[in-house]
Amino acid sequence: MTEALSATQSLARFITESRFEALPEALRHEGRRSILNHIGCALGVARDPAVVTALEIMRESSGKAVASVYGQREKLGVMEAAFVNAIASNLLDYDDTHLRTVIHPSAPVAPAVFALAEETGATGAEVLHAFLLGGEVACRIGNAVSPGHYARGWHITASAGVFGAAAAAARLLRLSAEQTADALGIAASQSGSIVENLATAAKNIGVGNAARNGILAARFAARGYRAAPLSIEGPLGWARAMGDEAQVKEITEGLGQRWEIACNTYKPYAAGIVFHAVIDACLELRDTLGAMVSQIARVTVAGDALLLARGDRVVRNERDTRVSIHHCAAIALALGRADVADFEMPAVQDLALAALRAKVVAECDASMPRGAARVTITLADGSTHQAYVEHPRGSAENPLSDAELAAKYRANAALGGTTDDVEAQITALWALDQAPSIAPIMALLRGVQ
Amino acid sequence: MTEALSATQSLARFITESRFEALPEALRHEGRRSILNHIGCALGVARDPAVVTALEIMRESSGKAVASVYGQREKLGVMEAAFVNAIASNLLDYDDTHLRTVIHPSAPVAPAVFALAEETGATGAEVLHAFLLGGEVACRIGNAVSPGHYARGWHITASAGVFGAAAAAARLLRLSAEQTADALGIAASQSGSIVENLATAAKNIGVGNAARNGILAARFAARGYRAAPLSIEGPLGWARAMGDEAQVKEITEGLGQRWEIACNTYKPYAAGIVFHAVIDACLELRDTLGAMVSQIARVTVAGDALLLARGDRVVRNERDTRVSIHHCAAIALALGRADVADFEMPAVQDLALAALRAKVVAECDASMPRGAARVTITLADGSTHQAYVEHPRGSAENPLSDAELAAKYRANAALGGTTDDVEAQITALWALDQAPSIAPIMALLRGVQ
Repeated sequence: MTEALSATQSLARFITESRFEALPEALRHEGRRSILNHIGCALGVARDPAVVTALEIMRESSGKAVASVYGQREKLGVMEAAFVNAIASNLLDYDDTHLRTVIHPSAPVAPAVFALAEETGATGAEVLHAFLLGGEVACRIGNAVSPGHYARGWHITASAGVFGAAAAAARLLRLSAEQTADALGIAASQSGSIVENLATAAKNIGVGNAARNGILAARFAARGYRAAPLSIEGPLGWARAMGDEAQVKEITEGLGQRWEIACNTYKPYAAGIVFHAVIDACLELRDTLGAMVSQIARVTVAGDALLLARGDRVVRNERDTRVSIHHCAAIALALGRADVADFEMPAVQDLALAALRAKVVAECDASMPRGAARVTITLADGSTHQAYVEHPRGSAENPLSDAELAAKYRANAALGGTTDDVEAQITALWALDQAPSIAPIMALLRGVQ
Repeated sequence: MTEALSATQSLARFITESRFEALPEALRHEGRRSILNHIGCALGVARDPAVVTALEIMRESSGKAVASVYGQREKLGVMEAAFVNAIASNLLDYDDTHLRTVIHPSAPVAPAVFALAEETGATGAEVLHAFLLGGEVACRIGNAVSPGHYARGWHITASAGVFGAAAAAARLLRLSAEQTADALGIAASQSGSIVENLATAAKNIGVGNAARNGILAARFAARGYRAAPLSIEGPLGWARAMGDEAQVKEITEGLGQRWEIACNTYKPYAAGIVFHAVIDACLELRDTLGAMVSQIARVTVAGDALLLARGDRVVRNERDTRVSIHHCAAIALALGRADVADFEMPAVQDLALAALRAKVVAECDASMPRGAARVTITLADGSTHQAYVEHPRGSAENPLSDAELAAKYRANAALGGTTDDVEAQITALWALDQAPSIAPIMALLRGVQ
C-alpha cells in the first residue's frame, strides 16, 4: 500500500510508534550525556541575573507549582518551569550543539520533557525516550532547511526547537498519531526568533518560548485543536514562509534507523564553537613552552574565513570574550584553561590578559578546514613554535568522555553556587532511565532531597 | 541635532511621548468603535468549543486570576485572559480589518490592554490610548512589509500583532523609551504564525500568542531584558528573516500625525471581506425582485481574480461557507441577510440553499476594482436584473454607523448566549475613556455587576 504522508504525519507516526526498548544503547547513552550536560549548564548560571529575572517574572504568572527549576528550591507551573530551564541551560551557549544545524537541541526539548514529566508522573525511561524523540525531530526539521534558514536570520535553536518540544510533549502526553501531527502543526504556528537579537537577552526569550510553546501545542492538540497537514512543507507553510524549500527527505528518510540526535556534541569551553581549535592549539603550545610562555612576542592564529569573520574583534565586554580569537588565545596561553569565569569581566579588565590579547594576530587561510586552527608563537628570541588542531576537544571526532562531562557538571555546579549533593545528582542522571519516577531526581536538583 | 533612530526607537519615542488629550476626537472615537466591535465578536462565540477549550487549558496553567475573559464569569491570569480573548474575538474573522495589510488589529492588541489594565488599575482613557498606540504600531509595521509578508505565508494579524500588543503593554506599564524599544525588539523574537494553518485552529493559537507574548515582552523589558536596536530592519532582523526588506518609512513617517488605526473597518457580515460586495449586490437585487426571487434561474457573479481565487469552491462545511461566492449569494437572496448563523452547518445542509448555490456561476472580470462585485440574475422568464457594488457596507468608503455597530454587538451577544445587561455594556464601552477605572466595565462583561 502506498501512502503519501506529510512530514508532520511521518514524524507523528515515528513519535508514537517508537519503543524505548528497541533503541540502541549507544543512542540512549548519548541521551544521558546530553541531559547531564544540559542540566549542568543550567546550574552554572542558577544565580545569574537573567535567570533570576526570568524566575521572578514567571513566578508572578505561574500555573500550579508542580515543576522543578534546576538548582532552585521552588517549583513553578509546567510551562513556566520549562521556560526558565530552557533560558538557563542555553544562557552562555555552553550547552550542546548539533553541528550540522548549529541547533542546541537540549535547551528547548529537555525542559519541556522534565516539566511535563513531573506533572504526569512519567518514568525516567519515558523522560529519556521523549527527549531523544524531541531532539531528533528538532534536528531533522533543522536539517530540512539548513543552512539557509539560519543564514537568513532565524535562530534555529528556537525556530526548530519548538517542534522538538512539541514532539516530546506529545509523546509524554500519549497523544495519538493524529494528535501528534496536530501538535507539530501548531508548533509551526509558534516558530520564530531572530538572529539579529542573538547578542541580547531577547534571544533567551525565544529559546524559553520554544520549550513553553511546545508544551502548549501538545496540550491544545490533546484537546482537539487541529493544524494543516502540510504545515511544514505546504505552499504557505512554515518552511516557505521562513524562506526555504523544505528538503522533506531530510525529515523522513531513515526515521528511527539513523539518529541525528546521536551526533550531539558538548563544549569543553564556554566560547563559540569555532574558537575551540584555537584554544586547544594554545593549550598544547603552553605545555610545550613551559616557562618560556612568558617570552611570547607574537601569536599568529590562522583559520578559515568563518573563524576570522566571527572572531577578529575588539574585546569590550563579556559577550565579546566568548567570540574573540584574541581572548581565547590569551587565556589558554596565560591560564592554561578556558572556563566560564575566564570569559567574565575580570578577565576583560585584567591587564596581563589585555597585553597578551594585543600580541595576537588573526590570519585567514582559506585552505584550512572549517573548525581548524593553526597557531604560531614567536618568542622574544625570534624562535617560533606551531600547533595545528583540526578536531578540537568536544567535536564529533574528538568527543568529551563521560568523565569529562561529569567534570564539566561539577565545575558548573560549583560556579552556580550549588551546595547540594552534586555527586548524587550526577549518579542519578547517569541512571535516569532506571528511575521509576523522576520526582527524587528533581528533588535532588532542587537541593531538597 | 540629527539623530538616526532605528524603527523600534522611533516607535518607542512615539509610544512614550503620545498624550491622549492631544489625540483628535475622531481618532478616539474610532478606537471606541474598534473596541465595541472587538468585544461583541468575542461575546458571539463565548460558548464555542474552541473558546471553551482555550479557557479550560489556560485555567489549568493560569497565573493569579485578576483579568476578565469577555462573557465568562471567571477571571484568569493576565497572559491567559489575553490569550483567550484574542482567540475569541478573531475566531470567526468577523472582527475588524485594516484593509491595506489585512491585519485584524484589535484581536492581538485589545486583549493585552484590558488584561494588563485590570492588573494595574488603569483608567479607561489609558486603556483607549494604549489600544490606539498598539493598533497603530501593528498596522505600521504591517505596512512596512506588505503585501509580500502575507503572500509569503505569514499570518500578519499574529506576526505584526505581537508588536502592537507589546507596544500597548509597554505604555500601560509606563516603560521608558529605551525599555519600550526593548519590548518591541523582544516582540520581534516572538513573531510568527503561518497562513498554511489559517483553515485550522492552529491559527487561533497564533493570534492568542500575539496578545500573550506582547505582554511577556513588556514585562521582560521592564525588568532589564534588552533587544537589538535593529531588531526590525537589521541585516539579520525580523523583516529580512521573514523575507522582506522593511520599508522603514512606512513605520516612522508622520507618526502621531497620520494614524493607520483610524482606517480600521468593521464587517457587517461574517464572511471573508472580499465577499461583502457580492452580498450587498444580492441584497439589493432581492429588494428589487420582491416575490420574483423565487423565479431565479441563474445567478452570475463577476469580480476580480482575487474574488474568484478565494471564493469559487464547493461548500462542504462551515469554513467553506464563509469563503464561498455561491453561499454568500444564496443566503443574501434567499434569506435577505448574512448573519453568523447563516454560515453554520444547518445552512450548509439546507436543501433550498444548496439548490440556490447550484444556480450561481462565478466569472472573472479583470477590469473590475478589487472588492467590487457585479451580480446578474436571470429569471425563469429570461429577464435579467443586475446590481453592481463597488464599496460594500463596512468598507472604508461606506463604514458601518455607530448604530449599526451597536446592533452588531447586540446580535453577537444574543448569539453567544449573553444574558447580561447588553445595553449597559454598550453604554459603558462608548464611554470607555471617561471611566476612572475599568473594573466596573469588566464586571459588566463578566455579567457580575
